[in-house]
Amino acid sequence: MFLADVIGTVVTPVQHPSLESKRLLHLRCLNPDGTPTGKARVGIDGCGAGEGDRVIVLDEGNGGRQLVGIPNAPIKTIVVGVVDYLETESGDLAYSHTQREPLGSLND
Amino acid sequence: MFLADVIGTVVTPVQHPSLESKRLLHLRCLNPDGTPTGKARVGIDGCGAGEGDRVIVLDEGNGGRQLVGIPNAPIKTIVVGVVDYLETESGDLAYSHTQREPLGSLND
Amino acid sequence: MFLADVIGTVVTPVQHPSLESKRLLHLRCLNPDGTPTGKARVGIDGCGAGEGDRVIVLDEGNGGRQLVGIPNAPIKTIVVGVVDYLETESGDLAYSHTQREPLGSLND
Amino acid sequence: MFLADVIGTVVTPVQHPSLESKRLLHLRCLNPDGTPTGKARVGIDGCGAGEGDRVIVLDEGNGGRQLVGIPNAPIKTIVVGVVDYLETESGDLAYSHTQREPLGSLND
Amino acid sequence: MFLADVIGTVVTPVQHPSLESKRLLHLRCLNPDGTPTGKARVGIDGCGAGEGDRVIVLDEGNGGRQLVGIPNAPIKTIVVGVVDYLETESGDLAYSHTQREPLGSLND
Repeated sequence: MFLADVIGTVVTPVQHPSLESKRLLHLRCLNPDGTPTGKARVGIDGCGAGEGDRVIVLDEGNGGRQLVGIPNAPIKTIVVGVVDYLETESGDLAYSHTQREPLGSLND
Repeated sequence: MFLADVIGTVVTPVQHPSLESKRLLHLRCLNPDGTPTGKARVGIDGCGAGEGDRVIVLDEGNGGRQLVGIPNAPIKTIVVGVVDYLETESGDLAYSHTQREPLGSLND
Repeated sequence: MFLADVIGTVVTPVQHPSLESKRLLHLRCLNPDGTPTGKARVGIDGCGAGEGDRVIVLDEGNGGRQLVGIPNAPIKTIVVGVVDYLETESGDLAYSHTQREPLGSLND
Repeated sequence: MFLADVIGTVVTPVQHPSLESKRLLHLRCLNPDGTPTGKARVGIDGCGAGEGDRVIVLDEGNGGRQLVGIPNAPIKTIVVGVVDYLETESGDLAYSHTQREPLGSLND
Repeated sequence: MFLADVIGTVVTPVQHPSLESKRLLHLRCLNPDGTPTGKARVGIDGCGAGEGDRVIVLDEGNGGRQLVGIPNAPIKTIVVGVVDYLETESGDLAYSHTQREPLGSLND
């Protein structure tokens, strides 16, 4: 599992039936300090996440299929949680949902 | 799951029977802003994708086998959807199938 | 499996029921010599690890689900052990839990 | 699945019984344009590939075990096909088995 | 599967019962020419490997669990073979166990 920022939605008319009515999110993976790594994923929204949210992404098929309730769906990547905050040992916040900044360019 | 551009087809006479009559697409993986990452994959065409299409790729064996309907096929990577458009929160299009540009060189 | 340093905790109110009451650790992956690679993961605490600990991370769904005792949980990454020390053939310690240094910046 | 060049064979006397009499190929992964990425894999020969061949590699355990016919073998990476040619939309050949060039140094 | 050098052992008092009495090896991943990639893994010793050995690593849970004989162990990475030699088509040795050189620094 890893952290990512939601940077948009992916609209595709050609889909497997098990993906119908699912929202596909375009995700930007993050470094330990919250800056983008340059890598991207496409994930199914499993928790009502929206653009600009920092989310926890599960990149494993069996767990993802359980989440959507379809045993044999062609699914690998699911957004399983919206991050409220990241806390360090000293109590500092490395990220807070309420203080998030606007997304910059898609790669930065 | 991730986004990729179809850059060609792979023709191979030596195959497992479950791959016969399947079209193998050569895929170029993409950064968050749609530029190539430099990585490549070979995927089975699961949705009628063609060269130049931007597609959603599923890189997981169990889901892929369900898609092709062969429980024990030696399959991992499947093209599961052709992207129509990518939309940002403000309604901007980061990519549109109808306005796609010609592929540049294979790595760029 | 790989080594990582625990750099904080992730707090997320939107979760799958099987993740409730589990602590989510923010992990920084490590190079062979113990310096950070720049990659990060989010893992479930399976062994009472705390910030600053060097840990062994299992990044596989089936094993992770066994560890938490929930057969169909949407889980991939679990912290399975806190490292006591790393020993080379000559008996040198490449890392020792009792002599660990404070974490630097999140990426370094 | 991805493309790789076979750069040699790996000989190892210590093996699981299910690997006995299997040939292990040393593989060099490739960029979209066919240049090496710098990454390497070790795969079981599932199709009579030889050094210098460009091959399709399946990096997934369940499919690999089906290919070798041993349900619980400790196997992940299998060479499933020798590439005949790579074709672009315009009919150009990005690679042709009959016109392949000698391998350069192992990383280049 | 991939090649790696064993650079040490990992000692951890906090473990799942299925890992007890297993030796955990610290592994340094390798480029096609045998130089380190900079990536590291922690693997269970499945074949009596020691520090300085060049080994074949299986990074897949289901196969790994078969090797150790524990169906639901939280295991992903196993050392499945010690490399005797790597041979190129011309009969050259790219690596030979009997002529191996001392390990340099942990990242180089």
